[in-house]
Amino acid sequence: MSILVVGSIALDTVRTPFGEAREVLGGSATYFSAAASFFTEVNLVGVVGEDFPEEHMAFLESRSIDTRGLRRMPGKTFRWAGEYGFDLNEAHTLDTQVNVFADFKAEVPEEYRSSEFLFLANIDPDLQRDVLGQVREPLLVAADTMNFWIQRKPDSLRRTLEGVHLLIINDAETRQLAGDPNLVKAAKRILDWGPRALIIKRGEYGALMFNNGRWFAAPAYPLEAIFDPTGAGDTFAGGFLGYLANTRNLSDENVRKAIIMGSVMASFNVEDFSLDRLKTLTYPEIETRYREFKRLAHFEDL
Amino acid sequence: MSILVVGSIALDTVRTPFGEAREVLGGSATYFSAAASFFTEVNLVGVVGEDFPEEHMAFLESRSIDTRGLRRMPGKTFRWAGEYGFDLNEAHTLDTQVNVFADFKAEVPEEYRSSEFLFLANIDPDLQRDVLGQVREPLLVAADTMNFWIQRKPDSLRRTLEGVHLLIINDAETRQLAGDPNLVKAAKRILDWGPRALIIKRGEYGALMFNNGRWFAAPAYPLEAIFDPTGAGDTFAGGFLGYLANTRNLSDENVRKAIIMGSVMASFNVEDFSLDRLKTLTYPEIETRYREFKRLAHFEDL
Repeated sequence: MSILVVGSIALDTVRTPFGEAREVLGGSATYFSAAASFFTEVNLVGVVGEDFPEEHMAFLESRSIDTRGLRRMPGKTFRWAGEYGFDLNEAHTLDTQVNVFADFKAEVPEEYRSSEFLFLANIDPDLQRDVLGQVREPLLVAADTMNFWIQRKPDSLRRTLEGVHLLIINDAETRQLAGDPNLVKAAKRILDWGPRALIIKRGEYGALMFNNGRWFAAPAYPLEAIFDPTGAGDTFAGGFLGYLANTRNLSDENVRKAIIMGSVMASFNVEDFSLDRLKTLTYPEIETRYREFKRLAHFEDL
Repeated sequence: MSILVVGSIALDTVRTPFGEAREVLGGSATYFSAAASFFTEVNLVGVVGEDFPEEHMAFLESRSIDTRGLRRMPGKTFRWAGEYGFDLNEAHTLDTQVNVFADFKAEVPEEYRSSEFLFLANIDPDLQRDVLGQVREPLLVAADTMNFWIQRKPDSLRRTLEGVHLLIINDAETRQLAGDPNLVKAAKRILDWGPRALIIKRGEYGALMFNNGRWFAAPAYPLEAIFDPTGAGDTFAGGFLGYLANTRNLSDENVRKAIIMGSVMASFNVEDFSLDRLKTLTYPEIETRYREFKRLAHFEDL
């Protein structure tokens, strides 16, 4: 089963306490696609500029990501620069150059319009709704957003949420979106607006899912070397939706497994800059780490 | 199997976004004892002043806590005043009055000296070592500490750690004690100093245990109403050690169950001010919440 993703493709410059990477491959749709490609076919909708390096196109194709929806436009590729302190949970944006993304109109190619799984990465909620309108009866629509859109376009975001089954955001965004400091009350309020489930990403503290009045808590894998947290949320979403699309089973039990799979993919991604760790990752490594997550979280009944 | 605990007994004044409580029962040894008393016999060593209300003594006795080691001294009881913002993870101390605790010499009554389980709550590491020296061959020694002792008495604390099997602290303290921002490296360094296991309390993010080169991640229970986080760490330690003392089984599997039991007790304690929730708590409620923790964290193998 294929997934359609719409989001940014970027060239990132990132500084962490462990080093620096300049003009490396980044962007929400890129991280998502690469992670999901370990599990299923991925159709990518986005835009790059004339300067987008051929090696990055070659990488996407090496992962069998369908790039027919990836447009190359006159101008420069979207750029983001950020840095992290020792508290790797939060990125400090140093510079954003929107470039070709400024005039991005998401056109979903005809051959993508029957995609059953859809991921609306963190972009303008107007654009998210635009894409949603072009896809026929998706089985599962997941979306991300951020503080910028929560503040600037709250009404548009609320309209987008009416068409979203699953919202994947972090805990600060959850509190901000719902206007409630208590996570339980905030989650309940957000589900009143449309989504059937909320997944709250908490970085080194793991993830929480709220659906059907119940919670699931997934741990994060304690890592000795976290090099670069950039893209952790999008690789999480990619592993999560990729696993669901592959298994095509939306039972509560399988959704929990998918959350662990998302956590597995994020735990690998932060081990190196950009998508470098995903470039060498193998499926047996993924299975091994899933089992490590199981050992990490397991305890017996009373 | 009985537990010996040494720590503070206090009168607390606490302000949270949800209300205020003045001169209520508090103190690390008090929270610990009350939580542990649901599972095992508790021997309490500490000091109170002449002003310590009879109703609090009556409460301790109603929980069958042995108070023969609790001395009443001329002067006033230890007092702490603090407040919490909407981020309930961190207390802001407004006032501390050491009072009778200033001259506290921990004297372990003869009938307590064969205790097999020992909890050294967050007090001066010199005093912790003093108590340790008075107990014969304890099976398990657990200790807490805080930033104050890590900064002021690092050498004394290191000497205390040589006699401690299990250190129970929060993540900021873990990083500060080891001098490493990476939790995995910090945990490894601390275990080099003596303890066999480290339990890291992370408030609303749960707890982590590191021992034998492996991690266990326990979730926190998402609560709709957190009234007052005061004492959460000590009720955690009380539930944890109480369960271990009751079952007298130090296998990795049972230690994990004990960590969940500690988390269960902490999750109840924060539902009301002071020890008020523990006063009405029943064992069937504890069992029910343990099962809820199991559902919260459970996922299947691949």
